[in-house]
Amino acid sequence: MNLKPITIALTAALLGGFAQAQTTANDVKDDFLPSPLNQPGKAYPQVNSQGYARFKVYAPQADSIRVSLGLGGQGGTLLNKGADGYFTGTTAGPMDEGFHYYHLTIDGGVFNDPGTLNYYGSTRWESGIEIPAKDQGFYALKNVPHGNVQQILFPSKITNTSRRAFVYTPPGYGKTNTRYPVLYLQHGWGEDETAWSNQGHANLIMDNLIADGKVKPFIIVMTYGMTNEIKWGGIREFKIDTFQTVLTEELIPYVDAHFQTLANRNNRAMAGLSMGGMETHQITLNKPETFGYYALLSGGIYKTEELANKPKPKLIFLSCGSKERPDGVKNATTELKAAGYNAVSYVSDKTAHEFLTWRRSLLELAPQLFK
Amino acid sequence: MNLKPITIALTAALLGGFAQAQTTANDVKDDFLPSPLNQPGKAYPQVNSQGYARFKVYAPQADSIRVSLGLGGQGGTLLNKGADGYFTGTTAGPMDEGFHYYHLTIDGGVFNDPGTLNYYGSTRWESGIEIPAKDQGFYALKNVPHGNVQQILFPSKITNTSRRAFVYTPPGYGKTNTRYPVLYLQHGWGEDETAWSNQGHANLIMDNLIADGKVKPFIIVMTYGMTNEIKWGGIREFKIDTFQTVLTEELIPYVDAHFQTLANRNNRAMAGLSMGGMETHQITLNKPETFGYYALLSGGIYKTEELANKPKPKLIFLSCGSKERPDGVKNATTELKAAGYNAVSYVSDKTAHEFLTWRRSLLELAPQLFK
Repeated sequence: MNLKPITIALTAALLGGFAQAQTTANDVKDDFLPSPLNQPGKAYPQVNSQGYARFKVYAPQADSIRVSLGLGGQGGTLLNKGADGYFTGTTAGPMDEGFHYYHLTIDGGVFNDPGTLNYYGSTRWESGIEIPAKDQGFYALKNVPHGNVQQILFPSKITNTSRRAFVYTPPGYGKTNTRYPVLYLQHGWGEDETAWSNQGHANLIMDNLIADGKVKPFIIVMTYGMTNEIKWGGIREFKIDTFQTVLTEELIPYVDAHFQTLANRNNRAMAGLSMGGMETHQITLNKPETFGYYALLSGGIYKTEELANKPKPKLIFLSCGSKERPDGVKNATTELKAAGYNAVSYVSDKTAHEFLTWRRSLLELAPQLFK
Repeated sequence: MNLKPITIALTAALLGGFAQAQTTANDVKDDFLPSPLNQPGKAYPQVNSQGYARFKVYAPQADSIRVSLGLGGQGGTLLNKGADGYFTGTTAGPMDEGFHYYHLTIDGGVFNDPGTLNYYGSTRWESGIEIPAKDQGFYALKNVPHGNVQQILFPSKITNTSRRAFVYTPPGYGKTNTRYPVLYLQHGWGEDETAWSNQGHANLIMDNLIADGKVKPFIIVMTYGMTNEIKWGGIREFKIDTFQTVLTEELIPYVDAHFQTLANRNNRAMAGLSMGGMETHQITLNKPETFGYYALLSGGIYKTEELANKPKPKLIFLSCGSKERPDGVKNATTELKAAGYNAVSYVSDKTAHEFLTWRRSLLELAPQLFK
């Protein structure tokens, strides 16, 4: 099994999405605003126009609070305690644009920042902060027709459970008998089926692309990509068989029976980020008759020899952030093209193994699907 | 404006869902199991068969952790610090069955328990714990056909935003041209449009009722009932006008245009819990031509004089927990019946102003709607 995507993920986590070298306090502009992901009415955490993040947490009898973001001191940002009982602090440098997971270490215990919303990552609900990106409009909530995101519970015999998925249906879905292609879109390690909507804004990216006439409307299905819910962190023992059965023998037939889908290979795509890319890689190679479009977002590559003697995909899309290993993605794409495959690469500028890379990847991928 | 439901809510919050008088440690059975609402893989908090809750939180350098549930000492449960850095403790008595919000006070600051899932209540995402109820089967995830819960984003001119609602559609919805009645179902103060699905399991209650043939399938629409998102806690200044416009002039037309609804008074109900009951009371009286069925769950009563000279509702449903003010609900129902109204009361046994009261109220209400 190729563990590279996981290694990349851990490296990025250690870097904490840090953008630049440390700067002095004098360079920090005083234009901090609440992060867009704060809980209603909460003033902190804040972000300034340079991408510095500032934290403020009340715990008058605590001795120490460290934020897991930034590179000050021993990793993360150590907050300073004030006489008013508030701990405050600012990252030692600007953060990468986009979404970051984080948590607080309060007197040695791990807790979330009560100022922010929580997002499932690292196999726990973590705090989230958003550094507004220059291109944030493509995933913004705009005054355009909106599709819906619906929770479905589908029966799974192989795992003996009702499993959950979220289904994005484009604006106008269900008003006529129109049938749509489907993208099966997987999250990364430690995340779950909520990630692509909550952290990824996949629905808003689609709404905006459709409003701009840049994409043929399609359905997106997002489900939980692990089947060993009890053994957390057991990624090295991961086997694709059970999830492949859930996806191809249980979920896809359920979606085709309950939604207005075009139920054939040329109208079915699979994509995934990080571990979800690893899953996409394995499942598309095992079931090439099921999917016509493949996409790995920071999730590895396809080699030409793996694709030989199989039905040819209509598209192979490989992407990553410029702070990951873009040469790997570019070189693989060059080789695939030379071998006659319709391969496309995309590198997200100045981002690492984090969600802005994947939001942008979906933005690039969507218009190339189902053509 | 009638503030009674809010007063009830605050009283119940102070009681913390406590069921009985304090007992000695010897009486506590050693059959604790993880709460059903724990994050994946988390062992704590735990609940035993008597309803005692036990907590375990790691924070080796912290001085003090108090859980907001229970009545030990100065309110809540003070945890004891062990040499291993874990704080542990058990409520001084059994809790009421059902769902409870709580939080931790760590060295004077308010944080969530990293062991549990979070639920929006008290205008913040709080920790949640579930004391399994004897009748928990009616809201359990079972192997029956499941309806979907979908997020919709609808345009609101009066608030100049895209507003969110969740829409439950019953199993089989959309497969034919069948049109369905609609229940508009409101959350309580400090909660939001996620409450009835997350805390209330409204979708599972409906799935199970439909599978048992006990209810005529209908759609449920759950939206955010406040329009002053910035001024939190401003309940005393609350005016119904803006939300009434959002609901009756923006959301209902949107739902009727986008879903297979029966768009008339006899197929439209409004219900709400606590503050949502107050809203239901006001809006149904202001717009009696819009709704045919009214339900207040721990949310006040209707007086006969309020209903005079208006189109007669087909049903008035009033409910509360036995630990609230059941006489008020029962007496109002008696008066309404005497005046010729089809009024029904329901009192949830041994529950207070909490979600098990409202789950059970929905169970009782649903079969009486749209007959």
